[in-house]
Amino acid sequence: MAITLVIHGGAGNITPSMMNKEQEANYHEGLETALNKGYAVLEKGGTAIESVATAIVELENNPIFNAGRGSVFTKKGLHEMDAAIMDGSTLAAGAIAGVRNIKNPVLLAKEVMLHSGHVFLSGKGAGEFALSRGLEFAPDEYFYNKDRYDQWIAIRDSDYYQLDHKDDNLKGMIPNSNHKFGTVGAVACDSHGNLAASTSTGGMTNKRFGRIGDSPVIGSGTYANNNTCAISCTGHGEFFLRSVVAYDISCLIEYKGYSLSEACNKVVKEKLVSLGGEGGVIAVNSIGEYEFCFNSSGMFRAAKSEKDKNVIAYYK
Amino acid sequence: MAITLVIHGGAGNITPSMMNKEQEANYHEGLETALNKGYAVLEKGGTAIESVATAIVELENNPIFNAGRGSVFTKKGLHEMDAAIMDGSTLAAGAIAGVRNIKNPVLLAKEVMLHSGHVFLSGKGAGEFALSRGLEFAPDEYFYNKDRYDQWIAIRDSDYYQLDHKDDNLKGMIPNSNHKFGTVGAVACDSHGNLAASTSTGGMTNKRFGRIGDSPVIGSGTYANNNTCAISCTGHGEFFLRSVVAYDISCLIEYKGYSLSEACNKVVKEKLVSLGGEGGVIAVNSIGEYEFCFNSSGMFRAAKSEKDKNVIAYYK
Repeated sequence: MAITLVIHGGAGNITPSMMNKEQEANYHEGLETALNKGYAVLEKGGTAIESVATAIVELENNPIFNAGRGSVFTKKGLHEMDAAIMDGSTLAAGAIAGVRNIKNPVLLAKEVMLHSGHVFLSGKGAGEFALSRGLEFAPDEYFYNKDRYDQWIAIRDSDYYQLDHKDDNLKGMIPNSNHKFGTVGAVACDSHGNLAASTSTGGMTNKRFGRIGDSPVIGSGTYANNNTCAISCTGHGEFFLRSVVAYDISCLIEYKGYSLSEACNKVVKEKLVSLGGEGGVIAVNSIGEYEFCFNSSGMFRAAKSEKDKNVIAYYK
Repeated sequence: MAITLVIHGGAGNITPSMMNKEQEANYHEGLETALNKGYAVLEKGGTAIESVATAIVELENNPIFNAGRGSVFTKKGLHEMDAAIMDGSTLAAGAIAGVRNIKNPVLLAKEVMLHSGHVFLSGKGAGEFALSRGLEFAPDEYFYNKDRYDQWIAIRDSDYYQLDHKDDNLKGMIPNSNHKFGTVGAVACDSHGNLAASTSTGGMTNKRFGRIGDSPVIGSGTYANNNTCAISCTGHGEFFLRSVVAYDISCLIEYKGYSLSEACNKVVKEKLVSLGGEGGVIAVNSIGEYEFCFNSSGMFRAAKSEKDKNVIAYYK
């Protein structure tokens, strides 16, 4: 089997003019470290699930990405995180929404998948489950980041919210002037041809009302099935929810015989665009094909396989 | 166009031996009232969205159904409700998870769809949105029901939880000895050929950890698209989440050319069964075809159209 790991660090309006050399280097290092650690799991014969979890933990621990430690601030100045993970060999899945003070949300999602008897837990209750399973907690200070804080302070007294990775005006959003990007994801194919997908996010700056995006929703932001593909999405979550993006790509492959590339392009560059939804996906299948596909100006992305060593890119 | 309204009040182990005449009469009256009120909206030229919301409000207000007023008790003795609604003409959708003290969760889901700029809100935050929009709240006493309470008291000190509508043993569940059934849903086709779907539930008795089932998840428990169908699910939610049931039915119609009936049967009686998932769906399309489809022993269900006047049934 062709072992493959593909990761993303968010899609959106990402152009060369918005990043200086230092920022580019930071993203490069962040993506490369996660890619190498996750891929090492596959090289040692580890599972796709272990590989994506390992890569996501690295991305969550890096404050430049909007997930885990680098999560944006909510309207109330908190960090509420969402994550999901799915095993394409069994269709087992775990997801959490609106959790606080969990150091690595992806590990909680994995624990939900393996040990809760449920698929989707939320809020304080998900935190109680984390406590009962011995997950690692972190204080609010751990999640503090000056850039995120300034981003929030600028809009906290308004009714605006903003995608972390978008600087166009949309209803309810204001321009993102400091060009921070976010949401992380990983998809992998292991040496047994098993697939896995995982996504983790801090959501939108100044979000409120317990808003849940697509990231933790199985079928929308995250999906894996050995027979078709593993998908992780990033973008304006509401459109991804309404379009059931991840499972739509899987169905185009399963029911219409589309290739991985054709299915991703159909959903991201035609269906999502016609609805007005901006963002992108990463995808892999069990024969080691992989895709980066986005309708925004850029997506932080990286891939590693036996034939492609550390492909790392940001722009179109 | 052939106006049609189809509703359900939960699927599961529902057999004649489990209900006496009085119970049968109560369910009959509950379903018939909701059906007639929802159908009257369509007869007056109202929208599919208004029709399903009207029917669901009736079901939520009736304590025999596990939704709204009749919602089961959580581990902590609370009522945490989930609901979703989707407009097949625009793919607009609204959903809420884990809300408390909202008299009619379906109306909050509709408000999310129309006025939040989001699709999916949760927990206390969803309650704050409800307050800001003037939704009707109800005190805990409103949701008190002796049967539900006894059901909860019997298992609250255990780690067990139970589906409201199931009496078989499953991992983590105990037998449901008093045969209460739950979750409600509605799908409609209006005089313009527009479709809508909605689902509302109190979830599982003794549930904890902020568990979210399939009901509020667009694509899993609820989905509507004029081009294919409108679907509302009921059953063991974890399997419906992993199978992305509602959107799978839609994709089989759109991508493989299945009829509404073929698609429902494929997903409910083959795919779900092979995964171990029990439950059912109701479905309607824009040419007025409708389906009841379940792999359990029964489903509370009813349909009304120009050619079928008040079909009401419980058993296979």
